[in-house]
Amino acid sequence: MKIICLKSQLQHAVQTVQKAVASKTPLPILTGIYIEAKDGRLELQATDYEIGISCTIDATVEEPGAVVLSGRYFQEMVRKLPGETIEIASNKEDRTIKINSNNSQFNLLSLPAEEFPVLRQINSENQISVKDFCLRELIKKTVFSCANDEARPIFTGGLLEIQDNEIRLVATNTHRLALKKDTIESGSSQIKMIIPAKILSELARLLVGEEAQNVTLSCQKNQVGIAFDDVYIISRLIEGQFPDYNKVIPPSFNTKVELNTDEFLAAVERVSLLAKDGEYNVAKFTFTENQVIITSNNPDVGKAYETVAGDLAGNGLEIAFNAKYIIDILKNVDSETFVFSLNTELSPACIKPNDDDNYTYIITPVRTS
Amino acid sequence: MKIICLKSQLQHAVQTVQKAVASKTPLPILTGIYIEAKDGRLELQATDYEIGISCTIDATVEEPGAVVLSGRYFQEMVRKLPGETIEIASNKEDRTIKINSNNSQFNLLSLPAEEFPVLRQINSENQISVKDFCLRELIKKTVFSCANDEARPIFTGGLLEIQDNEIRLVATNTHRLALKKDTIESGSSQIKMIIPAKILSELARLLVGEEAQNVTLSCQKNQVGIAFDDVYIISRLIEGQFPDYNKVIPPSFNTKVELNTDEFLAAVERVSLLAKDGEYNVAKFTFTENQVIITSNNPDVGKAYETVAGDLAGNGLEIAFNAKYIIDILKNVDSETFVFSLNTELSPACIKPNDDDNYTYIITPVRTS
Repeated sequence: MKIICLKSQLQHAVQTVQKAVASKTPLPILTGIYIEAKDGRLELQATDYEIGISCTIDATVEEPGAVVLSGRYFQEMVRKLPGETIEIASNKEDRTIKINSNNSQFNLLSLPAEEFPVLRQINSENQISVKDFCLRELIKKTVFSCANDEARPIFTGGLLEIQDNEIRLVATNTHRLALKKDTIESGSSQIKMIIPAKILSELARLLVGEEAQNVTLSCQKNQVGIAFDDVYIISRLIEGQFPDYNKVIPPSFNTKVELNTDEFLAAVERVSLLAKDGEYNVAKFTFTENQVIITSNNPDVGKAYETVAGDLAGNGLEIAFNAKYIIDILKNVDSETFVFSLNTELSPACIKPNDDDNYTYIITPVRTS
Repeated sequence: MKIICLKSQLQHAVQTVQKAVASKTPLPILTGIYIEAKDGRLELQATDYEIGISCTIDATVEEPGAVVLSGRYFQEMVRKLPGETIEIASNKEDRTIKINSNNSQFNLLSLPAEEFPVLRQINSENQISVKDFCLRELIKKTVFSCANDEARPIFTGGLLEIQDNEIRLVATNTHRLALKKDTIESGSSQIKMIIPAKILSELARLLVGEEAQNVTLSCQKNQVGIAFDDVYIISRLIEGQFPDYNKVIPPSFNTKVELNTDEFLAAVERVSLLAKDGEYNVAKFTFTENQVIITSNNPDVGKAYETVAGDLAGNGLEIAFNAKYIIDILKNVDSETFVFSLNTELSPACIKPNDDDNYTYIITPVRTS
């Protein structure tokens, strides 16, 4: 292999595939980045068998071929190379790869390219196309609600549903649930799959192209292929039955109050300062006619007391929540005000931005006594 | 105690004393911030017995007194309080402290103020005054050369010497030495003391007032008091005999080369990528007639090769250094070029900025082979 490419493009490609490079693995080849040159293109790949990412850039290919280089060293080196262009050439005799840029020259030992599990793109008819900003927004507004606990794998992913002209992403850890919907151009395919939260987050990070573009999702068995721009991602899917989230969303509420988002968020953040040390981060919310009183009590440190103005419609009540769950959602509410809807002190409550009917957050209260 | 003060000022005071709050200590009182109100002033203090910091701000004192609050909680709380002013009032009956700001109210449990080891300012005639920017520059240019290893305590501090109209700060870990000098207004006092590196760094962090000001240093036995603006710091000094650093600086050099600082720094940083894994971060430097060749060799990863142009005066030679020691000093060289001076492959070399004769860095080569 012998190629010349732009440093900026190579750096973009290395950063794109970097998250799929395995760090702890019994298979050393997975710590490498696979680099293949052919037909005026250079393709980089990395995989840890959970997620595989490929990124393809332009290059002057003087001699086609494929090599695998240490992901860690290659990434650091590309970032620091001094020139605008980088030359990469393999030396078959001693299995080293020569990397040149201006006055810099590196000779890196290569890993055996034939051992690398090269990604194959999924060729499925079950395919659907979504705008990148739409998918990014769906992920950003829900993925934080997934469970971290691997004990119940089904909740460590987000459920992506596409049907007719609606796309939905749902995430829950059973104590809170976030649902975000959007409309898309009507397609023939239906999709229902659970994508691991880690991969959703990585996808959102990569969906930041300057120009709006389409993202194509292709499903096959327990895998999804995600294609956009010069990137191709293959992710495993989480198998199992996602619970019927519609049953979790109460059909109606007795009590509603509209509150200022920033003001309420800041008050809950302060109260949670003194709520952190316990097993749960519990804050008490007292909904009265014209204000919400938020309190916490940490016997070792002290008490906090906050009030936020808001006119209540319905019955007043006293209810306790994990303060972190309230903070998480309010950080994702973009509108100036939101509506807090409740039934009783033991039944799920709902938070909704005032201007976005497609975003719903359900939170289960904490029992105190 | 009952006071009202500006949030911005209280936040400044808390941030100033924060670094002296003990985190791991068998004495719980040292995890607190001591707050004393009298004569229209509010003084905050914290100490871990290594460093003590006091900061005094204006306040409306309705009732004088002193309390001690948990450093960790008080700091987070002050940062997040919503109002422009903060009211702090003690309740003698239940030992709680009420903190109010707009609609926020905290009741913090207090620590027993009588147990706090209140700082007393040093009243010594051995006193000297230095400009803040001068002292900050001296610290910044040398403190990185101190030893981290507590095995030889004398090298974990910097030697501050003031004599006639010269101030000097010297730091060394025995493998490299940094010396920075400056001239000051001639005073009657002479000072020679070893200040712990941690405290020098903290002092440099605090010496960032918007207006130039004087820093007053007062020595007494094994302590130094440092006063500036609204801050007073007391630090223990390191006892023992600092070696005669003048003996470490070679009187002359056989070989000299002027090099571009940024170019040389970037080349050494790249070469060190492949030198990191070993016990020493060793890079080899070959000084030839018109360039310096920098190389490293990591048997597990590969080789790096860099050249930087520079016209040599004197004999060429091949010498090895810990690359980190070269990187550390070049990050502190502000001038476009520097002079690298050498004698033999086994004798100390010198790096000096081209425009600052008051800054000297000595580095001992690493034996290879």
